[in-house]
Amino acid sequence: MDALRRLPGVGQKTAQRLAYYLVRCPREEADTLSKAIQLVRDTLRPCRTCHYLSDSDPCIICSDPARSAKVLCAVEDSLNVTMIERSDAFHGIYHVIGGVISPLRGIGPEELNLETLLSRVARGGIEEVILATSPTVEGMVTARYIESLLEPYPVKLSELARGLSIGTDLEFADDITLAMAIEARREVR
Amino acid sequence: MDALRRLPGVGQKTAQRLAYYLVRCPREEADTLSKAIQLVRDTLRPCRTCHYLSDSDPCIICSDPARSAKVLCAVEDSLNVTMIERSDAFHGIYHVIGGVISPLRGIGPEELNLETLLSRVARGGIEEVILATSPTVEGMVTARYIESLLEPYPVKLSELARGLSIGTDLEFADDITLAMAIEARREVR
Repeated sequence: MDALRRLPGVGQKTAQRLAYYLVRCPREEADTLSKAIQLVRDTLRPCRTCHYLSDSDPCIICSDPARSAKVLCAVEDSLNVTMIERSDAFHGIYHVIGGVISPLRGIGPEELNLETLLSRVARGGIEEVILATSPTVEGMVTARYIESLLEPYPVKLSELARGLSIGTDLEFADDITLAMAIEARREVR
Repeated sequence: MDALRRLPGVGQKTAQRLAYYLVRCPREEADTLSKAIQLVRDTLRPCRTCHYLSDSDPCIICSDPARSAKVLCAVEDSLNVTMIERSDAFHGIYHVIGGVISPLRGIGPEELNLETLLSRVARGGIEEVILATSPTVEGMVTARYIESLLEPYPVKLSELARGLSIGTDLEFADDITLAMAIEARREVR
């Protein structure tokens, strides 16, 4: 239960329910989970180029010749790469920063994978860097910090559009998002 | 309890809690709520121009000379007007459609305030119509329907930007919103 409670979003009750399930379920099922956890820890390692967690180095994305190396998308973590891949809207390369600048949690720029980002841009060939950190305070501070780091390099910088979430009633939009959605409104005809 | 349960988001337990509270709270408090409900029903009426619920006709927005009558924002209901006003990003006029086209709930275009919208546009003076329905399936169908109605008129049509919600971790974005946020990414430098 203690080990399960450390998982994000798992409180005492859920941990208890999961633990009892794992004790009573067929032996193979518990084994499969246990081994999957081991396997993932044994085989996944960060790509030395982009820091994305994958079972090869260079990773499956960096080593894919079909992807455009002209557009680099800088994200907070490997999960974000998986999400963007699932959206199928991006076919460039990535750079996993490994977090966001957070003075409160003691995370400074030096804790992040920014030197490798800088050297990739300095090497040339990259025309656009998409600053795809979360639109949270820390994510935006991190994006502005990267922007200042890239000041000397002639690359285009962009950020993900802010606006309304598809499928959600307008009623649930917050004031700031709504204001940005109005200002960035798009012509449809 | 039965009356309270009809309120949106109020289930049996909440209705019970609210009902007991209303029985035991100071008399004036219950009176205030009861009278506020009466007052709101007695004084609020839809504006004959834009259908926004207000205590005057024409409404406070239609009768405000400081607002631009060149940009009209078409929304589903009066609550959306209040929300957009709170965002302070829009200073034009509104048209409250009164819902969305929904075959499942038996709501066709004739149930909505579309004829008055059409005649306002036909009268001239409006240069842009913002189709600000929700980015839900029904909201988008309604926007496309209005677009077809306005086909004969030389007005610009726009819709609210789709993208990431401010303050929310990228992790919680859905695939389609994420894809649109990537495609509509904005240059920051």
